[in-house]
Amino acid sequence: MEVIRDLCFAKDLSGCTLSLMDLDQERLGAVYELARRYASEAHADIKIEKTLDLKTSLEDSSFVIDTALAGGHYQQETVRSVGEKHGYYRGLESVEFNMVADYSTTFQGYGQLKLFLDLAHEIEEICPDAWLIDVANPECEAGTLLTRKTKVKVVGYCHGYLHYKDVVEKLGLELGDVDFQVAGFNHNIWLTRFKYKGKDAYPLLDEWIEKSSAQYWQYTTLPKNEFDVHMSRAAIDMYRLYGLFPVGDTTRSGSWKYHYDLATKKYWYGPYGGPDSEIGYARYLDRLKIQTEKVLSLVNKPSVSLLSEFPPGGGNEDIIAFISSIWNDKPGKYVLDVRNDGIIPSLPEDVSVEVPVTVDGSGVHPDKIDPIPRRLIDLALLPRLFRLNSAIEAFTSGDRSILMELLYRDVRTKSNKQAELVLEEILSLPFNEEMRKHYA
Amino acid sequence: MEVIRDLCFAKDLSGCTLSLMDLDQERLGAVYELARRYASEAHADIKIEKTLDLKTSLEDSSFVIDTALAGGHYQQETVRSVGEKHGYYRGLESVEFNMVADYSTTFQGYGQLKLFLDLAHEIEEICPDAWLIDVANPECEAGTLLTRKTKVKVVGYCHGYLHYKDVVEKLGLELGDVDFQVAGFNHNIWLTRFKYKGKDAYPLLDEWIEKSSAQYWQYTTLPKNEFDVHMSRAAIDMYRLYGLFPVGDTTRSGSWKYHYDLATKKYWYGPYGGPDSEIGYARYLDRLKIQTEKVLSLVNKPSVSLLSEFPPGGGNEDIIAFISSIWNDKPGKYVLDVRNDGIIPSLPEDVSVEVPVTVDGSGVHPDKIDPIPRRLIDLALLPRLFRLNSAIEAFTSGDRSILMELLYRDVRTKSNKQAELVLEEILSLPFNEEMRKHYA
Repeated sequence: MEVIRDLCFAKDLSGCTLSLMDLDQERLGAVYELARRYASEAHADIKIEKTLDLKTSLEDSSFVIDTALAGGHYQQETVRSVGEKHGYYRGLESVEFNMVADYSTTFQGYGQLKLFLDLAHEIEEICPDAWLIDVANPECEAGTLLTRKTKVKVVGYCHGYLHYKDVVEKLGLELGDVDFQVAGFNHNIWLTRFKYKGKDAYPLLDEWIEKSSAQYWQYTTLPKNEFDVHMSRAAIDMYRLYGLFPVGDTTRSGSWKYHYDLATKKYWYGPYGGPDSEIGYARYLDRLKIQTEKVLSLVNKPSVSLLSEFPPGGGNEDIIAFISSIWNDKPGKYVLDVRNDGIIPSLPEDVSVEVPVTVDGSGVHPDKIDPIPRRLIDLALLPRLFRLNSAIEAFTSGDRSILMELLYRDVRTKSNKQAELVLEEILSLPFNEEMRKHYA
Repeated sequence: MEVIRDLCFAKDLSGCTLSLMDLDQERLGAVYELARRYASEAHADIKIEKTLDLKTSLEDSSFVIDTALAGGHYQQETVRSVGEKHGYYRGLESVEFNMVADYSTTFQGYGQLKLFLDLAHEIEEICPDAWLIDVANPECEAGTLLTRKTKVKVVGYCHGYLHYKDVVEKLGLELGDVDFQVAGFNHNIWLTRFKYKGKDAYPLLDEWIEKSSAQYWQYTTLPKNEFDVHMSRAAIDMYRLYGLFPVGDTTRSGSWKYHYDLATKKYWYGPYGGPDSEIGYARYLDRLKIQTEKVLSLVNKPSVSLLSEFPPGGGNEDIIAFISSIWNDKPGKYVLDVRNDGIIPSLPEDVSVEVPVTVDGSGVHPDKIDPIPRRLIDLALLPRLFRLNSAIEAFTSGDRSILMELLYRDVRTKSNKQAELVLEEILSLPFNEEMRKHYA
C-alpha cells in the first residue's frame, strides 16, 4: 500500500498506468479494489489495471516492481523445518553471513531465482527498455543473476540502510547534521562515512559504547521490537571486529558466534534473540499475517477512509521517487543494489552491490565510496561473495554436487550422510518437484 | 643434500660461495661437513661457509634459500594434539582447503610467519638485491606477507606440481609428448592445460575414470606410499566438481567431505587415508626421522662415498637451475609462487600465486594462463583466499578476535566456549610465549 500511496501523491507521475499482477486471483482483486479506492480518495490522476497474466502486465511498461516471494512464507517455513529436523538450527539457509530468516538463496532459493529469471526474460521480450525494481529477496543474488544472465536494467531496493538513523537517535544527534554513506552487499552494508557537523562521528559512537552500552544491554526497557538490534552487542562486536559499523540487516548476520542457539542469540541480540530467532521470527510472521489480513479486510469496509489509514508521507519507500528521478530527469540520491562495475574495486565487476547512487533521466550514477578497510573486505565481504557465487553457480548449473558441497561446508554438518539425507528430503517435498528435476 | 648436490654439479655457478646457516650448532656442523665432503668428491669449485649468525650469512648474498620450520615438527605435533583434545580432528590448522598436515598458517603459523618477516627485514637491510627463494611452508602465506610488507624479491618453490607426471604415467602416456600448465595457489593448483601430442588430453583422463578407476580404487596393490593420492577418489571427485584436475598437494585438501575421520579419509585417499591422516602422517614423520638420522650419520662414516649416496641428477629440485637462470641470464621454465599482479585476473594483485614462469637475467616473467573455469575460482580459490587473508590479517594485526573468528567458522566448533578454551590452551604452551604477547 505504501507504493500505491506514494504513487497517488506523485504529481509528477500523474497520468501514469499502474498494472497490478498476481497469480492469486482473490488477493489481486482485493489489492486492486483498495488501490482504486485509494486513488479515488486521493483524487489521483492514475489508471489502475489488474491482470493474472504477466505478459499482459508487462506490455508498454517503463518500470516493473517485483515484490514476489515464490512459494510464500509457508514453503519457506516447511523447508526450514526439514532442515531443523536434520540438525540445522533455523534451517539450511541460515549460514555464515546469511542468517536473515527470509533470505533464501540456495535450498529455498530455487523457485525464487527461477521467478526472477523468468520475469527478466519476459521483460527482455516485451518491454526491454523497462527498469526492473526488485524489492524481493534475495536481492544480492537476484541482481547478480540478472546482470550476469540477462540484459535487463535492474536495481534492487532495500530500506534496511535507513536504520543508520537508529544509531543517530541512540547517540542523540540531529539527523539533519549527519553525513553518512553505506556500502557492501545487500544485508551486508557498512557505515563507510559517518560525520556529524562535518566531523568524524565514529568517536561519538565509541563514547556511547564505553559509557552507555553496558546499561543499554541490560534491556531494562524492552527493544521497540525484535528488529531493534541496531545497537545490540552483536552490532558493536561486528563493528569492533571489522572496523566499520554494520548497518540495518547486516547486524542480523555475521558468523555462528552469534547464532548457535536461542541463548546465544539472546545474548547478542537482546530479549527476542533478534528477528531471526524462533521467537523473533514467529513474532514477525504473526504480525505480518495480522497486518495483511487487516489491510485486505478493508475491502469489506467501504466506509473506512483509506487516506486516513495510509496518510501520505508516512513511509521511507524511495521506489516512486526513484521512478520520478528517471522519468522526469529529476536528480535524486538513493541507496540501491546495482552491478558493481568497479564501484568497490576489491570486488568482482559482475556482482550486485548496495551503494549510494545519484539517479536522473540518464540513469543510475554511483557515488564515490569512501575507503573500506581491507579486513572488512577480506573477512566479511569475501565470505558473503562466496555464498553469492555458490548460489548462482548451483542455480545456473543445476549441479546437485554444489548443493552438497555447501552442506559439507556448513558448521552443522557432522557427516556426509546427514547432508545427503537432508537434501534428499528437501528435494522430495511436493512443491519442489521442479527443483528436483533441475538438480537431477 | 639435493640442493648441495645440484649446486656442486652446476658448472655455470662455479666459484660461488655457499653459506650454511642454522640455529642448531650440531646440525649445522654436520651439514657443513657433509657439504664439504660432497664438494670435494665432486671436485666442485665452490666455497662453503657455516655460521650461526643470520646477518653474517646474508652478507653479500645474491640468493637466500629458506627451508626453516620454526619450532620444528615437535611443536607442530604438540599444537595439533591440543587441538585434537578439544575436538579438532587433525588439529586446528586442518580446515577447508588447508588439510595439508604441515601447512601451518595461523595457530601454528605465528612463529613461522615471524621468521619469514624477520628474515626478509634482514635481507632488506643487508643484501636488498638478493632473491629470497622460499621452499618452506606456508608458501602462499609467506609469499603474500612478504610482498605486502617488504620489498624483498621473493619466489616460492614447491615440487608438488611435478605430480602431474603421476597422471601421465597412470594414463600410460609418453611424458615427452605432454604439454601441461598448472595455476592457482600453493597446494591449490589445477591442470589448466593438459595436451597430448597437441590434442586435449582431458578426454583420456575421462576414459581412465570410466574404465579403470573402479578397479584402481580397490587398491589390490598398495599405493607407492601415503603421498600417492594423485588418482584417488578425492582427486577425481575434485576434478568433477571444480572442472579442472587438482595437481599434487591440491588433492590433499578440499572441504570436510574427504576429511571427517580416518574412515572417510581412507575411502577418499586409499589405504593410508592419504599423507595427512593419523596413519599417513605418522609414516611420513617416521620416514623423515630415519632419513635425517641416516644422512647425519654419514658424518661419522668418512669411508662412505657421498657421491654414490647422492648421485647427480637424481631429484627434481629446480632451485639451483633457477639461480643459474637469473645469474647467467639463461632462460628457463619453472613453476613458482610469485606475486599475482594480474596473472590470474580474478584474484587480487597482492597475493602469491603458483604459476608457470620463464626466468632469465632480467627476472621472473609469468606465462599466460589458460582460462580457469569460474566455478573453480569461486568455489575453490576464493575459499583458499579467505584463509590466506585471514592468516595475514591475524598475524599483522595481532588481534586475537580474528583467531577466535576463525574458530567460530570452523565446522568442528560446537560452542563459543570450546573455541575460547582451545585458543587459551594453545597460547599457554611454553613455546608460544611470544605468540601470546602478540595476541594479547
